[in-house]
Formats: sequence, C-alpha cells, structure tokens
Amino acid sequence: MDEEKNNTTLVVFSGDLDKAIASFIIATGAAAMGGKVTMFFTFWGLNILRKENYTSSKKKNFMEKMFGMMMPKGPDKLGISKMNMGGMGSKMMKKVMRKKNISTLPELMEMAKELDVNMVACTMSMDVLGIGKDELIDGIDYGGVAAYLGDAYEAKVNLFI
Amino acid sequence: MDEEKNNTTLVVFSGDLDKAIASFIIATGAAAMGGKVTMFFTFWGLNILRKENYTSSKKKNFMEKMFGMMMPKGPDKLGISKMNMGGMGSKMMKKVMRKKNISTLPELMEMAKELDVNMVACTMSMDVLGIGKDELIDGIDYGGVAAYLGDAYEAKVNLFI
Amino acid sequence: MDEEKNNTTLVVFSGDLDKAIASFIIATGAAAMGGKVTMFFTFWGLNILRKENYTSSKKKNFMEKMFGMMMPKGPDKLGISKMNMGGMGSKMMKKVMRKKNISTLPELMEMAKELDVNMVACTMSMDVLGIGKDELIDGIDYGGVAAYLGDAYEAKVNLFI
Repeated sequence: MDEEKNNTTLVVFSGDLDKAIASFIIATGAAAMGGKVTMFFTFWGLNILRKENYTSSKKKNFMEKMFGMMMPKGPDKLGISKMNMGGMGSKMMKKVMRKKNISTLPELMEMAKELDVNMVACTMSMDVLGIGKDELIDGIDYGGVAAYLGDAYEAKVNLFI
Repeated sequence: MDEEKNNTTLVVFSGDLDKAIASFIIATGAAAMGGKVTMFFTFWGLNILRKENYTSSKKKNFMEKMFGMMMPKGPDKLGISKMNMGGMGSKMMKKVMRKKNISTLPELMEMAKELDVNMVACTMSMDVLGIGKDELIDGIDYGGVAAYLGDAYEAKVNLFI
Repeated sequence: MDEEKNNTTLVVFSGDLDKAIASFIIATGAAAMGGKVTMFFTFWGLNILRKENYTSSKKKNFMEKMFGMMMPKGPDKLGISKMNMGGMGSKMMKKVMRKKNISTLPELMEMAKELDVNMVACTMSMDVLGIGKDELIDGIDYGGVAAYLGDAYEAKVNLFI
C-alpha cells in the first residue's frame, strides 16, 4: 500500500515545450520523492523523444514523410502552447529559464534518466505517425495501452498532459 | 478494494480527433481489463457525441444556433489538435489509420458500447452550448459534476483529457 | 482511508476560460462533497489569479514586461480554447452563462474561497513568467512541485487541466 502511494504515471500526449517542461518537473519531483515514475509518450508527445538532426533509415510512405518533416525533432525544436508566435515565445521562455538558472528541458530529461524515470514510447502512435525506433533517443521502452494501464492501476497519481 | 483498483474515469473535455482517439483507446483498454469505465463528455467533448447531418428540433436562440453551426457534428467532423491545416491533417490521420488497420474513432466508439463503457454527457455544458438531447447519439447517460465525482472517488485512474 | 478518498487536487496549467470554468466547477463540487481540495496554478493558469487593471510594483526586465503585457489579467480577460475568434467566443460564452444563471468564473472563484479550496500559485512558474506576488489576488498560497505532490499522494482524484 505504501509503495502504491508513491507511484506516478504521466501520459505525455502534448508536444508543447511548456507542457513537456511541466511533465518532467512533476516526473523528476516524484522520482526524487522515491516512487516509481512512468512517462508514457503518445501522439505529439513522441516528438519530445526524437533525436535532433537525424534522418530515419525507416522506409516511409508519403504521409509518414510529411508528418516526419512537419513535426519538431526533439526538445529544442518544440513550440509553446500559447504565445508561440512562430517560435519567438518558445525562444523567450528558454532564454528566461537559462538566465534564472531553471533547468532546461534537455537537462530535466537527463535528470529523469538518472532518477530512473521509466520513459515509454507508445508503439501505436509511432505506427500512426510513421516514427521509427531509430529516430527516438536511447534508453527508452516501448509499449501499448495495456502496459500503461498496468502501471496506472499500481500508481497513486495518474495525469494526462 | 480490488474492484476499486480497476475502475477508470475520463473527463473528455477536448473535441479534437487525436485526443478523442486517445480517450477511447484508454477507455476500451481499461474496459477490456475488466474494470468499470465512465467517460464524462463536457464542453467541446460533447461534439464527439453529436449525430452527423442532424438538425436539432430544439428551439435555439441566436447564440445557440451559432455554436451549433460552428461546432463539428460527430466523430467524422473533428479536427486534430496540431497540424490540422483546415482539416487536411485530420484527413491524413484517418487515412493512415485505416491503411494500417488501426480502429477508427467510430469503430472505437462502437467497441466502447459493446464493452459497456458508461458514456455520460454533461448536462451543464449542454445547457451552455445549447445542445439538445436529440442531437446526441443514443445509448448515453446524462449527468453533472456530482455524478462524475461520485464515480471518480470509486476509481483508481482518473484522467482529464 | 475514508478521508483520503475525498481529497482532490487539480493542476491548473491552462489559462483558457473554458478550462478554468471546468476546473472551478470540479473544485467547488468536490469541496461541497466534503473533501480537501487543492488547486495548483502553474504556467498560463496563473493568469486566472492575476488582478485586473493592476500594474505590478515588481521591477521587470524586458521579457518579463512582454509576458506581463501580453498575458490576460484575471478571469474577465481570458479567451476560450476553441472558437475564441479574437475574444468574441469568450464574450458569447459569458453572455450565455449569465443568461442561463450559470455561475460565472469570478462567482465560482468566490465560491471556492468560501468552501476553503486551497489555491496555490506555482512559484517556479511565477519566476519564469516574471509574475510578482502583488499581481495575484489575495488569500492564496505559494508553493512548488514537492508541495503539490505531497497533496496529490494524499488525494483520490488528481487531474491535470
């Protein structure tokens, strides 16, 4: 029971920088408090896990190429959900955070790995968006909704972001 | 306690196709695992439940007519939350899903009914948006926040989508 | 255990009027049912707590001034997440709600205070967006992710809005 109380799962559906930062702040905070933390990246959230400047070796059809080209590649390319203004808002937010010594998204992701946060890429979404495993960062797991629900039923805090 | 562990509630606030798909994948997955599942459709989420090509017999004032006309009618009319590009993104996503034999939203909704997922339309939101009961699909329930919270306190996984 | 069942926490990340209304309807509903309710306002959600027509005495740098000017000040200035149309959608929704005697956001916020809903402003987000304490309404608390998680682990319903 005690152990159950400390577990946390986050469905990271959004690929917005601000929501990604919120997700990793909650995830690293929860992991630092000792519980098991699982982040399940689905749909646009997969973009957070994409490698920068990487072209997949996956054979893609026309629509998969379109999605692949138009979606941001990795944490540095994400926009913010409000006032993005063609990326200016996103740049402003990153600049402010650096200036105030608040951890940036890549730093938070590194911290999450060190704290053994379990990052899972949703295989169905990868299929829909045509994202290959080679396009995503190393050290993550792959799974579907059943795996997510299995973790969620064992956790005390479950959020959809 | 065991029974409590398996229950799930989803507040479906969003009327975006991608979030609707995510909601029904979680709902049908949870129902298939044996727990009681309640989906509470509120605000834009009500559009998922609207009948296609149906004109309500409800007497509507000017603003209700405006909302009624501008909001999508049913699962086939929904846009996606990112890269919708005037509906093109939504069409692309549906095409990809059909091609890859992933269940479409209408199929997922059918599956949810067969699995006895309890779909509840938020009566207060219906009032705000001027949506009549005759505009919504059959086989759903109607309720307010107290009914939702009653279910949520008995569930293990509660998400706001 | 019984007490645990009744507690609720909401992360209010969004600063959209419709999501703010949904948050306060859930919060006041949950408080009326007797449980402890904590609302944790972060990122754009902080705008809900801003005083109207108030200029902060906080010394702000260029970017903080930009954020401060561009973000809505208080519940009456918020847009809606869909069909906002430069504020027209937001006005329509407020007009409809008044006409139908549904509580407006300022009324819901007053009700939340009377029901002892604990409203917490996220200090890290205040730092990122350059929001001073003097800009936010009275009667709220201040805290970070650890405080939020502490409450969430003691609650039965935890939502991210």
